[in-house]
Amino acid sequence: MASRLLHRHIREQLRGLNEVTHESLVVGAIENAFRFMDEHMARKQRNQYAVGGCCALVTVYLLGKMYVANAGDSRAIIVRNGDIIPMSREFTPETERQRLQLLGFLKPELLGNEFTHLEFPRRVQPKELGRRMLYRDQSMTGWAYKKIELQDLRFPLVCGEGKKARVMATIGVTRGLGDHNLKVSSSTLPVKPFLSCFPEVQVYDLTQYEHCPDDVLILGTDGLWDVSSDKDVAATVDKVLSSYEPNDPSRYTSLAQALVLGARGISREQGWRLPNNKMGSGDDISVFVIPLGGADSYT
Amino acid sequence: MASRLLHRHIREQLRGLNEVTHESLVVGAIENAFRFMDEHMARKQRNQYAVGGCCALVTVYLLGKMYVANAGDSRAIIVRNGDIIPMSREFTPETERQRLQLLGFLKPELLGNEFTHLEFPRRVQPKELGRRMLYRDQSMTGWAYKKIELQDLRFPLVCGEGKKARVMATIGVTRGLGDHNLKVSSSTLPVKPFLSCFPEVQVYDLTQYEHCPDDVLILGTDGLWDVSSDKDVAATVDKVLSSYEPNDPSRYTSLAQALVLGARGISREQGWRLPNNKMGSGDDISVFVIPLGGADSYT
Repeated sequence: MASRLLHRHIREQLRGLNEVTHESLVVGAIENAFRFMDEHMARKQRNQYAVGGCCALVTVYLLGKMYVANAGDSRAIIVRNGDIIPMSREFTPETERQRLQLLGFLKPELLGNEFTHLEFPRRVQPKELGRRMLYRDQSMTGWAYKKIELQDLRFPLVCGEGKKARVMATIGVTRGLGDHNLKVSSSTLPVKPFLSCFPEVQVYDLTQYEHCPDDVLILGTDGLWDVSSDKDVAATVDKVLSSYEPNDPSRYTSLAQALVLGARGISREQGWRLPNNKMGSGDDISVFVIPLGGADSYT
Repeated sequence: MASRLLHRHIREQLRGLNEVTHESLVVGAIENAFRFMDEHMARKQRNQYAVGGCCALVTVYLLGKMYVANAGDSRAIIVRNGDIIPMSREFTPETERQRLQLLGFLKPELLGNEFTHLEFPRRVQPKELGRRMLYRDQSMTGWAYKKIELQDLRFPLVCGEGKKARVMATIGVTRGLGDHNLKVSSSTLPVKPFLSCFPEVQVYDLTQYEHCPDDVLILGTDGLWDVSSDKDVAATVDKVLSSYEPNDPSRYTSLAQALVLGARGISREQGWRLPNNKMGSGDDISVFVIPLGGADSYT
């Protein structure tokens, strides 16, 4: 009987495991670690009425693969032979609009009577009641017309553009850790239900390419990326690393310093300025440079 | 006063319109048309206790752009100079797992006491209560371990793989129109809340490329794609169109016929078979071929 049926049982047990690759277990472990960290902070914040939160950008190296997990508005890129490989996406009210709107739609109690989950191209005025106006909801990527009703006059859940985009007029980053006690200003409405602690994990297989000492992973907070494009950063990588011997480990420290100083700018009479005279970054600037070449690549 | 302030008001009014491009208005119009169609069918089905639903794949040509809107498991590709350009994505329990799980998590009443929103690699057995097992929820793309609890023994909301994947053990397509009265088998639980009527709209700019009479948009139902890959279809496009004069309009009709007949196969003793002796498509096979070259491209 077993000779006839055992292979079927084995196939049945293995069937569901098709998707459970080693990689997906590492990704799941990282995802759950973010959740546990957030719950950990929840307990701390409950006991101590502490406030505050943070974004988190993490990299894990395991068995030839680099896992980059991002929750928030930091960013990671790989600069490889001059090419730029994005390793994360930012999570902001604009990039997460549909997730936020869906939550507000399904759980209207989270909006109180203060916010509407609908988005309008500009703030709706009371005198526009009954008129047609463009809107979009959680299911739409395009814009369509609707007749303005009373509840459309509420403040939009997602509002503003670029660096000024906000959820509940309060926070501009929609994933991260902590902020369990964050409330809408002048209100008791909690913001946390709209914030996700889950990262997006991207995987980079280091064995698929012969990396040289100039190939690096750059992790930076928004302070870096507010004023530096991916191309700016890649140019600095090239400039700094080419001025050092390939086997000089201090080249990576110098690169990180150069990236931070470049984003901060130089103190002038009108304040911190970049070489093009634009304002330097006003946000925290933290940068990590991780060489991908590995010690045995050094010549 | 106006000379000083009017430009600010204009800028303020225009500011919100940055995102409202002509293209996004067409996309919004198509999205809302799908919703109105679904509401239309809801009224019909309420009055007549009618059943049934369908996927929908639509293309709209407007001002030099081709809009392809897909809700369901049909597929559209452009074959251009032999290259394949995907113009849609399928919406199935597998591709929409996280959307479905999120809905089940936020609205557990939609699951009754019959389903769990969690996914497990295989069905959990009662004797496994208290043991550790791999799972993933609405926020995870990887797998992690949890201790099996009583409610994990419920049937999973999303179950099965490939063509056999189902939502609520009932339906294998997660977007489309109709199905307002669809219930879980042997239950009063409605399935419709988990089905989205909203399409994903992809836009193709026809003016960016000089199209020739052999460049076509292919729209096909799942019956075509179950047995034909994108490459198979592109090969048939090449084979059929090259056997006709470029200015013979019947070449496109013949191509559509060839694609349908190729997916159906040939009647043999064991049933409908493909040339490789695999089974022919058992599903509806509908194919549209839309030439992109336009009349003035004909030589």
